[in-house]
Amino acid sequence: MNGAKSLVKTLLASGVDTCFANPGTSEMHFVAALDQVPGMKCVLGLQENIVTGMADGYFRIARKPACTLLHCGPGLANGMANLHNARRARSGIVNIVGDQAIYHRPFDAPLTADTTSMAHTVSQWVRSSNAPAELGRDAAEAVAAAMQYPGQVATLILPADVSWGEGGVVGNPIAVSPPPSIDGNAIESTARTLRSHGADTLILLAGPAVLAEGQKLAWRVAQATGATVMADYVTSHLARGRGRLQLERVPYGMEAAIKTLERFKHIILVNAKPPVGFFGYPGMPSTQYSPDAQLQVLSRPDQDPVEALAALAQVLNAPQVDMPDPGPRPQAASGAPSPEGLAQTVAALMPENSIISDESVSFGRGFYRFSHAAPANDWLHLAGGAIGDGLPVATGAAIGAKRERRVIGLQADGSAMYSLQSLWTQAREQLPVTTIILNNSKYNILIGEYKNVGATPGETAMSMLDLGNPSLNWVGLANAMGVEAARATTMEECADLMTSSFGKTAPFVIELMI
Amino acid sequence: MNGAKSLVKTLLASGVDTCFANPGTSEMHFVAALDQVPGMKCVLGLQENIVTGMADGYFRIARKPACTLLHCGPGLANGMANLHNARRARSGIVNIVGDQAIYHRPFDAPLTADTTSMAHTVSQWVRSSNAPAELGRDAAEAVAAAMQYPGQVATLILPADVSWGEGGVVGNPIAVSPPPSIDGNAIESTARTLRSHGADTLILLAGPAVLAEGQKLAWRVAQATGATVMADYVTSHLARGRGRLQLERVPYGMEAAIKTLERFKHIILVNAKPPVGFFGYPGMPSTQYSPDAQLQVLSRPDQDPVEALAALAQVLNAPQVDMPDPGPRPQAASGAPSPEGLAQTVAALMPENSIISDESVSFGRGFYRFSHAAPANDWLHLAGGAIGDGLPVATGAAIGAKRERRVIGLQADGSAMYSLQSLWTQAREQLPVTTIILNNSKYNILIGEYKNVGATPGETAMSMLDLGNPSLNWVGLANAMGVEAARATTMEECADLMTSSFGKTAPFVIELMI
Repeated sequence: MNGAKSLVKTLLASGVDTCFANPGTSEMHFVAALDQVPGMKCVLGLQENIVTGMADGYFRIARKPACTLLHCGPGLANGMANLHNARRARSGIVNIVGDQAIYHRPFDAPLTADTTSMAHTVSQWVRSSNAPAELGRDAAEAVAAAMQYPGQVATLILPADVSWGEGGVVGNPIAVSPPPSIDGNAIESTARTLRSHGADTLILLAGPAVLAEGQKLAWRVAQATGATVMADYVTSHLARGRGRLQLERVPYGMEAAIKTLERFKHIILVNAKPPVGFFGYPGMPSTQYSPDAQLQVLSRPDQDPVEALAALAQVLNAPQVDMPDPGPRPQAASGAPSPEGLAQTVAALMPENSIISDESVSFGRGFYRFSHAAPANDWLHLAGGAIGDGLPVATGAAIGAKRERRVIGLQADGSAMYSLQSLWTQAREQLPVTTIILNNSKYNILIGEYKNVGATPGETAMSMLDLGNPSLNWVGLANAMGVEAARATTMEECADLMTSSFGKTAPFVIELMI
Repeated sequence: MNGAKSLVKTLLASGVDTCFANPGTSEMHFVAALDQVPGMKCVLGLQENIVTGMADGYFRIARKPACTLLHCGPGLANGMANLHNARRARSGIVNIVGDQAIYHRPFDAPLTADTTSMAHTVSQWVRSSNAPAELGRDAAEAVAAAMQYPGQVATLILPADVSWGEGGVVGNPIAVSPPPSIDGNAIESTARTLRSHGADTLILLAGPAVLAEGQKLAWRVAQATGATVMADYVTSHLARGRGRLQLERVPYGMEAAIKTLERFKHIILVNAKPPVGFFGYPGMPSTQYSPDAQLQVLSRPDQDPVEALAALAQVLNAPQVDMPDPGPRPQAASGAPSPEGLAQTVAALMPENSIISDESVSFGRGFYRFSHAAPANDWLHLAGGAIGDGLPVATGAAIGAKRERRVIGLQADGSAMYSLQSLWTQAREQLPVTTIILNNSKYNILIGEYKNVGATPGETAMSMLDLGNPSLNWVGLANAMGVEAARATTMEECADLMTSSFGKTAPFVIELMI
């Protein structure tokens, strides 16, 4: 058995059965092994950032890692931005990068690169396998590393000769270590703060704490103590809609965030990091909380927030409570497209248990307030700030949901152009993804940031901020990649297109002119 | 004056007047400075690999560096594959990467990344500027590093507070060191080999040695000594057509390369590295030359091959000779598309002094033989093996040629999908680029490599090698990005479309069904 076969068998034995791929020459023995060993579903992406973004979206919904297949250092480089996002989202990915044969590396052939150094910048675990006999064990360790709670990017570099060499041994699945347990002192200390200062305390949730179970426990604690619950702005995946909290995230804008947080004298961090600005700005602090606020860590990002919150609720004797009623489901909006209208329409029409991939950037800042009363849904965000994850995350999420759930993409146009090749994979795999492209023909977030610099953009600046010359035609782009599409200029048109696409098991693009 | 203004003024004073850009929030003060200080032409790319690929193409034609503007580590990551290619092409680029404010870095905001480590994997020179007062000097040094013969990728990391902070000082242009001079002993030794063993000797040219002047000198030496002249396979830019050598490159395929080189007992390396395989293959050597061959370095990749070859010709008393006649210009081909037919048609129809951006991959292996008798032209290749440079290199080359020369892209479809956003920039800048997309709906090179593994691709393998489900419509993709396009299924149709597009100062895409 060659190394490649031992690798495929180890992955399957460890529960990894989906491979997002863009292979090259040095991976052909691995491709052949995937052909010969049945059981792995292989999904092609036409550029590597699609591949890695799909693996991220897959994990967020399937809650188990897929593997990737990338070609040498430059193939890894192409997929690094969405690995950066996945690392920030704490998504588990077994990131497999084919590379030059070990003996061929010193010859510095054109595709030779410092793949290991590249990998370290976006991975929590990196190994370059050294021999066919070690590859199975290396792969089992990579899977365990990817599954380390809540999830990690584990990069396994696969030299071509380790892949083709004989002597492969299937690796035994490795038991994943449980997350580090919660410190009893942290629970007691947090309980004391909440008992004494509940009304001045913010419980800030991030990571798995914003999924359904964590929200319920946090709500119990808040009801018992008068504390406020919010989600970190940097949150990859929230449970939303009926039966969940009407959570708001800390605002993106620095001034709004500072204003929102200033009244809290205590902030309890539940898998969250202390809230800081996305960027530094002249004359403003880096942190968003009050200089007088006391920060307490209830659970670190690598600990189980449900364990922590359950223990906290128990110590506080917090009674069981119903989740708050979000009010009546909104109706679809009419007239000119607006952020509120789109959020209401999505909430009005989405099927139960939908997945929302939200990379709406500036247009979507106010979506939450108008979509709390939607049916229960999973709402996915860009967690690492590297734009271009919305389309591939939607694609991977649809596969992670075994095509059984409707995926709705709320997608800014500028970001969509980073990874438009995703639409082709959606067509190839016939995925139930409805993407609403928000076409404003500009990098609107940057025009806002430019104005913060204190000036109106002139001709040279607008040559870098405006996408309107020529206009992108998203119906044409989608059609050319095999995806049906139509343009909407009113909310009624948008609603009609959404309703009809929700009845189909195929992708659809709505180009909403905003 | 803030740092950003000192940066723009330093770049302009150092002769850098073109900026390929995809900015973000942390670069807004630099964008504002570009607005306020006149003189920099800014060209937007809709994804960073377009930006860096354009800078590479610009250098190859303008023979001076442009600067880029990228957004944080992940923006650099998106552009790294084409920086890898530029590094291999020895193209000079001043690669400017905006980053978090220095004081904001420790807060690990979402876009924070190890930008410096990323940059080192693709750059010959890296610096993160530390203060506004140092930025001008840093920029002048970056330009000098980029211009170091024959060209280098120089990455200047620009923290936001270094950009917005006051105290900027314009840097004085720095004199670029001349390339290290040629060792007289190397010339004497090479001359001795050529005198004694000319008929068994290969003069292998790479880098600037394959431009017009180097070719003339190499031909004089070859005529005087009976040596053979070839170009390295890894060559980013050849002078071709009438008045130039009918050079062939060392073949890509390992067996063909070994067969081509086996008869040479001596190989003179003129800016070339010893020829090695693009990849290692089971049971084959890494090197392509005969085990008995003696290698001699006439000039290193960072030395001036014209100086070396001129000295060699003088020592050999090689007389002036005419360049060989390539025979009559071919006629445009007819009938079904074929590699020979396309090469002949391009040679028949291209305007004098055209630029060819050739990322034709498997279809293009035989183009040279049928295009020696074209008018004089510059023929550009992928030097680093990271596919996706053809379209952006063509775009940047057109700007480097001040829109005064016809650029013809010979572009495989799979590679084109990596960087299709380039077409939008071509439309925005109204560039005279005619791109012939070779639509075979598959990664044909990989199907060939798979067969080398010893098997026929099965269903799983083909799910990763075939692009035909759904078919990509390149006319639709081009139109949707503002580029006129048409499909050709015969060489006559292709020739007609080429002729009509050559008369326009706007981009055009021909989708050639092969």
